[in-house]
Amino acid sequence: MLRIALFGAGRIGRMHARNLAAHPRVELAGIYDVNSAASAEVAREAGTQPSRSIGALLGDRSIDAVLIASSTDTHCTLMEHAVRARKAVLCEKPIHLDINRVDACGKVVEASRMPVQIGFNRRFDPSHSALRDAVIEGEIGRIEQAVITSRDPAPPALDYLRVSGGIFRDMAIHDFDMARFLFGEEPVEVSAMGGVMVDQRIGGIGDFDTVMAVLRMESGALCHINGSRRCAYGYDQRIELFGDGGMLVSENPAATHLVRHTARATSARDRLHHFFIERYAESYVREIDAFVDAVEAGVVPSPSFEDGRRALLAANAAVESAASGRTVRVAP
Amino acid sequence: MLRIALFGAGRIGRMHARNLAAHPRVELAGIYDVNSAASAEVAREAGTQPSRSIGALLGDRSIDAVLIASSTDTHCTLMEHAVRARKAVLCEKPIHLDINRVDACGKVVEASRMPVQIGFNRRFDPSHSALRDAVIEGEIGRIEQAVITSRDPAPPALDYLRVSGGIFRDMAIHDFDMARFLFGEEPVEVSAMGGVMVDQRIGGIGDFDTVMAVLRMESGALCHINGSRRCAYGYDQRIELFGDGGMLVSENPAATHLVRHTARATSARDRLHHFFIERYAESYVREIDAFVDAVEAGVVPSPSFEDGRRALLAANAAVESAASGRTVRVAP
Amino acid sequence: MLRIALFGAGRIGRMHARNLAAHPRVELAGIYDVNSAASAEVAREAGTQPSRSIGALLGDRSIDAVLIASSTDTHCTLMEHAVRARKAVLCEKPIHLDINRVDACGKVVEASRMPVQIGFNRRFDPSHSALRDAVIEGEIGRIEQAVITSRDPAPPALDYLRVSGGIFRDMAIHDFDMARFLFGEEPVEVSAMGGVMVDQRIGGIGDFDTVMAVLRMESGALCHINGSRRCAYGYDQRIELFGDGGMLVSENPAATHLVRHTARATSARDRLHHFFIERYAESYVREIDAFVDAVEAGVVPSPSFEDGRRALLAANAAVESAASGRTVRVAP
Amino acid sequence: MLRIALFGAGRIGRMHARNLAAHPRVELAGIYDVNSAASAEVAREAGTQPSRSIGALLGDRSIDAVLIASSTDTHCTLMEHAVRARKAVLCEKPIHLDINRVDACGKVVEASRMPVQIGFNRRFDPSHSALRDAVIEGEIGRIEQAVITSRDPAPPALDYLRVSGGIFRDMAIHDFDMARFLFGEEPVEVSAMGGVMVDQRIGGIGDFDTVMAVLRMESGALCHINGSRRCAYGYDQRIELFGDGGMLVSENPAATHLVRHTARATSARDRLHHFFIERYAESYVREIDAFVDAVEAGVVPSPSFEDGRRALLAANAAVESAASGRTVRVAP
Repeated sequence: MLRIALFGAGRIGRMHARNLAAHPRVELAGIYDVNSAASAEVAREAGTQPSRSIGALLGDRSIDAVLIASSTDTHCTLMEHAVRARKAVLCEKPIHLDINRVDACGKVVEASRMPVQIGFNRRFDPSHSALRDAVIEGEIGRIEQAVITSRDPAPPALDYLRVSGGIFRDMAIHDFDMARFLFGEEPVEVSAMGGVMVDQRIGGIGDFDTVMAVLRMESGALCHINGSRRCAYGYDQRIELFGDGGMLVSENPAATHLVRHTARATSARDRLHHFFIERYAESYVREIDAFVDAVEAGVVPSPSFEDGRRALLAANAAVESAASGRTVRVAP
Repeated sequence: MLRIALFGAGRIGRMHARNLAAHPRVELAGIYDVNSAASAEVAREAGTQPSRSIGALLGDRSIDAVLIASSTDTHCTLMEHAVRARKAVLCEKPIHLDINRVDACGKVVEASRMPVQIGFNRRFDPSHSALRDAVIEGEIGRIEQAVITSRDPAPPALDYLRVSGGIFRDMAIHDFDMARFLFGEEPVEVSAMGGVMVDQRIGGIGDFDTVMAVLRMESGALCHINGSRRCAYGYDQRIELFGDGGMLVSENPAATHLVRHTARATSARDRLHHFFIERYAESYVREIDAFVDAVEAGVVPSPSFEDGRRALLAANAAVESAASGRTVRVAP
Repeated sequence: MLRIALFGAGRIGRMHARNLAAHPRVELAGIYDVNSAASAEVAREAGTQPSRSIGALLGDRSIDAVLIASSTDTHCTLMEHAVRARKAVLCEKPIHLDINRVDACGKVVEASRMPVQIGFNRRFDPSHSALRDAVIEGEIGRIEQAVITSRDPAPPALDYLRVSGGIFRDMAIHDFDMARFLFGEEPVEVSAMGGVMVDQRIGGIGDFDTVMAVLRMESGALCHINGSRRCAYGYDQRIELFGDGGMLVSENPAATHLVRHTARATSARDRLHHFFIERYAESYVREIDAFVDAVEAGVVPSPSFEDGRRALLAANAAVESAASGRTVRVAP
Repeated sequence: MLRIALFGAGRIGRMHARNLAAHPRVELAGIYDVNSAASAEVAREAGTQPSRSIGALLGDRSIDAVLIASSTDTHCTLMEHAVRARKAVLCEKPIHLDINRVDACGKVVEASRMPVQIGFNRRFDPSHSALRDAVIEGEIGRIEQAVITSRDPAPPALDYLRVSGGIFRDMAIHDFDMARFLFGEEPVEVSAMGGVMVDQRIGGIGDFDTVMAVLRMESGALCHINGSRRCAYGYDQRIELFGDGGMLVSENPAATHLVRHTARATSARDRLHHFFIERYAESYVREIDAFVDAVEAGVVPSPSFEDGRRALLAANAAVESAASGRTVRVAP
């Protein structure tokens, strides 16, 4: 059994608490959140104890690892403390919004030689990972184009958006990671455009709610990403890979396999899942599996710290491109 | 060019007139209908002449063939006159409602040695005929089960139903033919049930509007047919063949390839075609192609007179089974 | 926490052990199987103890309920012992192959007033139950036809088939239950045909491997069921309901949402699940939820003992119809 | 009857000849091609006469209109001669590769006040035009994003590519037109990337075979276009429109509605159409309908000369952007 402590008892922390508690090879060893009421409630639900301090958890020798699901600005500091305390780390994305802070943290992580995994959960979605497997098997030959669609059901609160780092770093970072994961290579340049179509207040704080980007990969292949902060029909998450031998598409799952045929709508599938908690439920469970496997086997977890860093570099290039109207090279 | 005269200027006659007129290897040589106004109108639309009499058309040596699309009770008499006048015949289904009349007519046809094709147009539907081709290619091995679904959008007028011969002989006869066509073998016994779910007046005239049948084929394979006189979502025509190597399904075509994703209905395809004129438009054109091909090549057309007769025998067995509650052997 | 003991450590027993162990409101209180090695292995996997005897489990006052997943011939006896020992019962289907034995057992159950649920797990499948909900909501109005497709990937061993009660009582009994569940009414008559297309040895022991049946329901609606012991493309489980307002279809789930487009096959979905353990995984979990809910709330569980009995009556009518070639009334 | 002469007897000219000959309101009044053998053969097939000279056709007062399907470099000259000879014109796309030549031609067309339609046939595809209708009906509200996919089955000959004007002007010009058509507004800026993934010889002549572009429309909406000169699974032509009320997708039609379920591939639809002649067959017929309607009614045909000009301006911006790595404003 791997004893794991959880930092963060917000929406995503609560979900992780449930998954850690139910995992056959994990013991949830405590929960900390600055909001002690939230921490207490989630701990009770998950059948564990809230902790009064970060230090108490990190100082507990019986704890093997921590899952960091607190706010983004705390990720690097917690990760540094954790690896110094000899804990393995599973940290939510993004690592941090500032690449300099990421690089500084990366040095601490590297020096510690502790295993660190970044929470790009979508890599563990059964369909997306089957897509990657099919690419590796050569089912469609060499990949030439990709189209990644990412549309959230509704924008988060403006207060969140103000500190989110912007749509490219906060939301599309998943898609930049997915491009790297699926192609198995780096983006070399990015061209991006952003617009404000959903809510003018989002434009008012200097952010976009509607974006499109094109990445050129090392092989010369092109990858399109589109994103929106609002989607009337649910959480729209699709990936299309086009190769010289065909096309693979990871389609949206419907809530059930019920199909309706009426005078109004023929062959209508059931609604999509509402949002990531439902849509990617299985991926979050498999993400913990992978982390436990890596820690137990003593191998480097994947996606790694470097994966988290490189996704941010691509997002940064997109931010710069959208501002300048130029294609921007991704920093190495 | 094959010169073809048309008998019948009703809904289906009008469609045939249009197809004959547009066919590159056919010259529409005249139209006759007891309703001379209808005849005149359809002739004008199709750029040909109405004829004052059947005899005038049959006596015209320049006419090679006739297409019989008049009411069912006139089919046998017209066919007999036509083959005696050395015209090839394409006759709408069913040949006649009375098997004795069919057999008498069959003798005249046989004696004449003239080519006669029966209008089981669905055999020429691109998807249904691709299904048959795939069976012949052995794509799913030996066929073990079939499910044939046939649902009309709305019941015809009661006046029509009174003389229709009942749902098995009038409507399901297409499906009995399809079973014979797809399996390439004869049904040996039929079990059928009928109900009145759509309109009690249909029950009042001794007919059903909702039917299910199971056929046992010579090979032992089983074939289910279901039918309804009313379907809220359009004309529902599907065929499923199950073999030891897999399943083939001829699905419903949608009116267009537009798919809608809204909060109300996800992945909703466009509506189905309303009814047979739209749904089977292409099959009616290809049916004429096949007839012209056969006549020009001097080979026996298919589906043949015997195909028309055997579909009626299966329908008769279904009628008897639905009345008696017993599985009934199909007369040879 | 409900303390539940498990009888049976075969394939399905092992799955139940896993689900009981993982259930947040259940404590798996022991496992018994005549095969003590199997019992020990499953108990170890599930983190519980094997029991040396049925009596030890039934005599344990701390145990609230039993899940009976042993061979069919033991169901009634175990159920009678269990209810007399004041245990609630969740019993796998079918209750027994002999309706007289079922009726005798039913009297014991009734007298005990203990809650008994029968394992028609498919009622708890998310898509099938959404189908039932949509019917209740009136989405397609009054139901007029149903088509239920049930095809297993491969036949079980002949030794199993010899004692299975035949395909109608062993396999199609799920479909008879589904018809009753979805229509919310009883079948009044059944017409069935059976064939041997998959394996002649199955015919040699007097059973069928390929069946079709039509049920007439109390309302007059018709329901078709087809079944096969072998299916090349996986476990095929579909339900189609046709009403005056439209059609609802519970489609097969694919293993993932990956879709392939190649020169060989366009828009090919991922393979189907192999068999019931994978396909109905979620239904088995939800079945236990429902049982725990009912026992905790002190209400009659559903599907009830009577549901198990009535499905057997329909299966018996099908057996008789397939033998006699007559439509058979379902005993009340 | 509108008497129409045809210029060009290549692949697309031959198809137009067939459609003109079969059109109920058109008389095909002659065919001219520099290759007199091709001209003679197509004329024979279509039941008309080849013409020895352009002048003979343009000088024929009985001819109302011309369809220009000759090589791109001849379009402007023929169009100018035709409108001066008082013929209505239906001209294949693109008008010309040089915007200055287009503008000069535009002045002649405008001065003549003759009706001129440009052959953006895809606007007449039943699914694409239903998509436009649904947008106009407000089915998905305000459009915020579009994804247009255009992949040809195989690259044309290098000799053709050398004079084609490049992939943006030759192939993607259809997609630029489609963006304008579907949004009902102009693109204001374009960012494009090109790559050579299919055939290095295409790169050798300074062209791309794999492209992606993003357009910003006047409303701020973003439109992605991707294109490839080669597609293993057939001619891939899809359009996705995303609005605040949902998403509309014009999907690829399959060759038939046959769906295969085997151990290898589940729910595999039939292959796509091979290329534009098959895929857009109906659009070419409806394009002629629209032209005849406009000429008969004396209204300006659509898509107009100006539509042809504006699509070229967008293509030119893409060419410049792909070369410079900058987002380029579309000339007004």
